[in-house]
Amino acid sequence: MLTGPDDLRVALDVIGIFAFAVSGGLVGVRARLDLFGVAVLAWLTGLGGGVVRDVFLGDVPPVGISDPRSIITVLVAGLVVVGVRPWILDLTRRNPDLRLGGIGSAVRHLDAVGLAVFAVAGALKAVALGAPPLACVFVGGITAVGGGAIRDVLVGQVPEVLRREVYAVPAVLGAALVVVADQLGMLTTAVIWSTVVLVFVIRVAAIHLDLNIPTAPQQGARP
Amino acid sequence: MLTGPDDLRVALDVIGIFAFAVSGGLVGVRARLDLFGVAVLAWLTGLGGGVVRDVFLGDVPPVGISDPRSIITVLVAGLVVVGVRPWILDLTRRNPDLRLGGIGSAVRHLDAVGLAVFAVAGALKAVALGAPPLACVFVGGITAVGGGAIRDVLVGQVPEVLRREVYAVPAVLGAALVVVADQLGMLTTAVIWSTVVLVFVIRVAAIHLDLNIPTAPQQGARP
Amino acid sequence: MLTGPDDLRVALDVIGIFAFAVSGGLVGVRARLDLFGVAVLAWLTGLGGGVVRDVFLGDVPPVGISDPRSIITVLVAGLVVVGVRPWILDLTRRNPDLRLGGIGSAVRHLDAVGLAVFAVAGALKAVALGAPPLACVFVGGITAVGGGAIRDVLVGQVPEVLRREVYAVPAVLGAALVVVADQLGMLTTAVIWSTVVLVFVIRVAAIHLDLNIPTAPQQGARP
Repeated sequence: MLTGPDDLRVALDVIGIFAFAVSGGLVGVRARLDLFGVAVLAWLTGLGGGVVRDVFLGDVPPVGISDPRSIITVLVAGLVVVGVRPWILDLTRRNPDLRLGGIGSAVRHLDAVGLAVFAVAGALKAVALGAPPLACVFVGGITAVGGGAIRDVLVGQVPEVLRREVYAVPAVLGAALVVVADQLGMLTTAVIWSTVVLVFVIRVAAIHLDLNIPTAPQQGARP
Repeated sequence: MLTGPDDLRVALDVIGIFAFAVSGGLVGVRARLDLFGVAVLAWLTGLGGGVVRDVFLGDVPPVGISDPRSIITVLVAGLVVVGVRPWILDLTRRNPDLRLGGIGSAVRHLDAVGLAVFAVAGALKAVALGAPPLACVFVGGITAVGGGAIRDVLVGQVPEVLRREVYAVPAVLGAALVVVADQLGMLTTAVIWSTVVLVFVIRVAAIHLDLNIPTAPQQGARP
Repeated sequence: MLTGPDDLRVALDVIGIFAFAVSGGLVGVRARLDLFGVAVLAWLTGLGGGVVRDVFLGDVPPVGISDPRSIITVLVAGLVVVGVRPWILDLTRRNPDLRLGGIGSAVRHLDAVGLAVFAVAGALKAVALGAPPLACVFVGGITAVGGGAIRDVLVGQVPEVLRREVYAVPAVLGAALVVVADQLGMLTTAVIWSTVVLVFVIRVAAIHLDLNIPTAPQQGARP
């Protein structure tokens, strides 16, 4: 039973690190990196957003590289991906459609979990350290999208946050809700978890309904 | 009428953020990103150099994510690009040559504005915070080239600063002039604006005269 | 004769900056960048790891942009590469196989030198600044792999640290040995240099024996 805000933030951090790390590892498997490349990509994706957050808030060395809970979480996530890697490689060799479709879908859903908890956890930490409200919203947004952007740039893709889907909007919205709740003195555990769920639901709805911000017809992201 | 050095630095920051943000948004339009991708790329390009500067100077949270003037400037720049986007897409569809030529030229000139004001604004802030002279020059240079480098890496291009043209040299020169003027006690508004104009003129001359640092014949930047 | 730990750290920094800077410059030559692009890539590669280390440790402005010894080292390295550039371009034009083979081999060996000394120098600095042991290990590892990762991302390649070879493992091992030696009160000059040599030997052995962490058969890093 989590009651204190610090416990809650650690719980959110652990969930976010795990989800992002697995997403990074899967992207590494899809890019046919070796075992260690997969593990490094998992680590960078899992910890990247939080490290950028801590550098921006002046909380150095960043928790992501000094707190044993972060490190253990990211190592376990790396091991999970390394463990399922042969099975995924085998499956995608027999069914090539799975490679982009199945792995892509898993990556997006894990990414949605990480996005939701990191947006809230990032804003919570900024609020706790007394940053100005506007900065708290941005720090939350950056924490949420940072790990995924690092992951995509490292394997040579245009980051998800720049591509077609509703991505940064729910993250910024979630961070803003945390800041507003804090200003109103309503930053309870229930409000925090509801915000996480809201961001996750919006993001997953966007994935499933292909609910994109309207664009003119186009032929692809990198012509 | 700007008289105080702080007012002047804010004015330079606003101009640089606006110019870089529009350049980032146009690169996003050219890469056929959706509306939100265009806005995010505008934001990262506009604020990126200043955020790196503030992290290097230990001024966290960075002004770029906490000062309302920065945020409003970058939002307005994003809206401008989003507003002209359909018109550009339409124009470039009817005249494909415009896509690389016209947009590329607009991006380069806006980039030159941002480069000039950020080189000076970055060095000014480093001087104001009492960094060592050599660090002030480098911080100015990094502030100037940082946003554009982030923009180019995110859309999968080799950054302008590594490509053929005179780019970082005028930025470093401008930052060095600020530091020298400060050491001589001559850091007046007139000297500051003259330095901005000098950097801009050198960079634009390089664009127009194709005045490159001499290179051996070559077949392209990414063989 | 180096006796004090600070002298030793400066010596390691200078060696690492030089080796990484030359590796970055050579990658720039191979990518057919112009003279200034080569110099900038040399600079970013040489100083990148140390700058990230200093930001993570809160030691700003980073030594890499404020210490004249770092700057002079990186400038000399840039001049060396610019000096040998016409000769390399000529040689590789007559013998195209050299371009990937010969330059690639030189880059990897220089990278191994930088990796070894930066892993140790990064951990030493983190220990000296009193960071927690786990953070010291990570800071050492990041210092070692950071510059090379920046170099590779900037020219559009998947970073070495994510590719097939034993790369980050020896760096993290070297940093861990420094931390353990510090805890045991055995952080002597002999131990430090032995650790550097150990990391270098493991990495070079991996290059020569193609001693990779086992992977399933695959068709290439970026399918």
